[in-house]
Amino acid sequence: MASHFADRLAEVVKKKSTPLIVGLDPVYSRLPQNLRYGRGDGETDLPAAIDSIFEFCIRTLKVVAPIVPAVKINIAYFEKYLWEGVEIYYSLLSEAEALGIEVIGDVKRGDIGHTAECYADAHLVNPEFDEMDAIITPDAITINGFAGAEGIIPFADKADEQGKGVFVWVRASNPSAAVIQDFADASGVKMYEKLAGVVGEIANQPKRIGNSGYSNVGMVVGGTSPQETTALRQKYPKCWFLVPGYGSQGATAADCVRFCDNNGQGALINASRSILYAFNDAKYSQQFGDNWEKCIEQAAIDAKIEISKAL
Amino acid sequence: MASHFADRLAEVVKKKSTPLIVGLDPVYSRLPQNLRYGRGDGETDLPAAIDSIFEFCIRTLKVVAPIVPAVKINIAYFEKYLWEGVEIYYSLLSEAEALGIEVIGDVKRGDIGHTAECYADAHLVNPEFDEMDAIITPDAITINGFAGAEGIIPFADKADEQGKGVFVWVRASNPSAAVIQDFADASGVKMYEKLAGVVGEIANQPKRIGNSGYSNVGMVVGGTSPQETTALRQKYPKCWFLVPGYGSQGATAADCVRFCDNNGQGALINASRSILYAFNDAKYSQQFGDNWEKCIEQAAIDAKIEISKAL
Repeated sequence: MASHFADRLAEVVKKKSTPLIVGLDPVYSRLPQNLRYGRGDGETDLPAAIDSIFEFCIRTLKVVAPIVPAVKINIAYFEKYLWEGVEIYYSLLSEAEALGIEVIGDVKRGDIGHTAECYADAHLVNPEFDEMDAIITPDAITINGFAGAEGIIPFADKADEQGKGVFVWVRASNPSAAVIQDFADASGVKMYEKLAGVVGEIANQPKRIGNSGYSNVGMVVGGTSPQETTALRQKYPKCWFLVPGYGSQGATAADCVRFCDNNGQGALINASRSILYAFNDAKYSQQFGDNWEKCIEQAAIDAKIEISKAL
Repeated sequence: MASHFADRLAEVVKKKSTPLIVGLDPVYSRLPQNLRYGRGDGETDLPAAIDSIFEFCIRTLKVVAPIVPAVKINIAYFEKYLWEGVEIYYSLLSEAEALGIEVIGDVKRGDIGHTAECYADAHLVNPEFDEMDAIITPDAITINGFAGAEGIIPFADKADEQGKGVFVWVRASNPSAAVIQDFADASGVKMYEKLAGVVGEIANQPKRIGNSGYSNVGMVVGGTSPQETTALRQKYPKCWFLVPGYGSQGATAADCVRFCDNNGQGALINASRSILYAFNDAKYSQQFGDNWEKCIEQAAIDAKIEISKAL
């Protein structure tokens, strides 16, 4: 695989012929009944909850890896189980990597200076600790750029060194985000556009551009505001966009594919719950019964087809 | 102790007669030489680095607990050591709590919806897992409000339930933060003021106000812009302000105390490196030699006196 994150992404998106990625946000109470190993409701039985979540995620990874170029693993769902959850988060990263897909850690870390460097060490640098040779960090992470360039560059620099990437959270898809992110100056420029400008300047530095023409610094932009997003695509042609909100959160395939370039590259369209919990959707459970892996597989294939049609 | 976070803060600030708090940002290579247990430079020897950091932090906590009302523990410096670092972060929370001070987890988490709830579970809810009775979460955490009210309320709600608090990062002290946070609309309102308005509305809800008149939802605002901060203090009289930047980061005591009300309440002024690494400062090492705990103790006392004079 190419050593530049943007080039690896381009390769694997081409190979899988889709910008669709699957988000892992595992919630114990929503897992298939026969995977819930906890006593009672299981919520207080930490080792059982972790075992259940780990098995569900591993089996899901194996189902989706042949279909999609990447997965996004949301650390919050693991952090909830304290350090033991964090340990299985790291274990899953290695498992996903071994399946030949790109792995994005959705960690949304954000701070400045040495603190930002510590977060970057934790989430972008493959550990050099003596007893942890097998542990890897994700190919890329999401970060929060609220502190401006000084909150982004420490992450981007470590990503450069490691052949990895960062996606800066520029525009969220939730309604209340607009109060802050659409806050506009006298000329009508919105705060998220200003932030995109900061990210674009960092992303466009020649050292960050791979052979594919894309940078290893991209943006997270919700898919629910299609007009705005087309403008970002045009303004930042070297940035990959990570687009949440497809499926359960209300963005359509047509909304999301506006982020792709003419070759279907440059965007990763994330679906989480609509694929991960497809076995709770009558459309799939009526067809496949208790075979939850078949439900997930079919939902991923269906989403892939829907996006292909929209492209 | 009172069960409302803001009331507990008020009590302990009064008891210790200072708004000064100490930030724990432990860096292995800066620890006292005789506490660095690692082989070679120790940086790759994870168990030794963790043991060193844990011992340094525990002993520092015991030194500063009689002097200050609270400590701020920055999780990034522990997360760097993966799940094993996260485990000692949680252990330190319990140790600090046992010393009768308030404990703030500087975690800067920020996301929306269920993801925000998972982070809140991890960092504000005392675990109800069967085997983890002794584990507690901090009295309050820092969060990132970039996603607006929907990114703040899930944390505030959990804090309410647990008698805990949140500090929303409103204005950073680093220069590049101004590009984003001072971005102004046509009437001159800055983005951080807009965000402060969102936070203030959540903070001012009657259910969040304690007997002290303060809310359990506060703000993190850098101490380096004194004019702006005086305006925030006046506009949000019910909010506690957590003020980083005193000492090493360049804010003076006079800058920082502008956040306090007339009773010296309503602000926590954080000093990290200037106290934590006082043994590397000739001013203290010449006086106390290798006795690094005495250096830290004296630096905390000196900072406390300096702030008292400014009040």
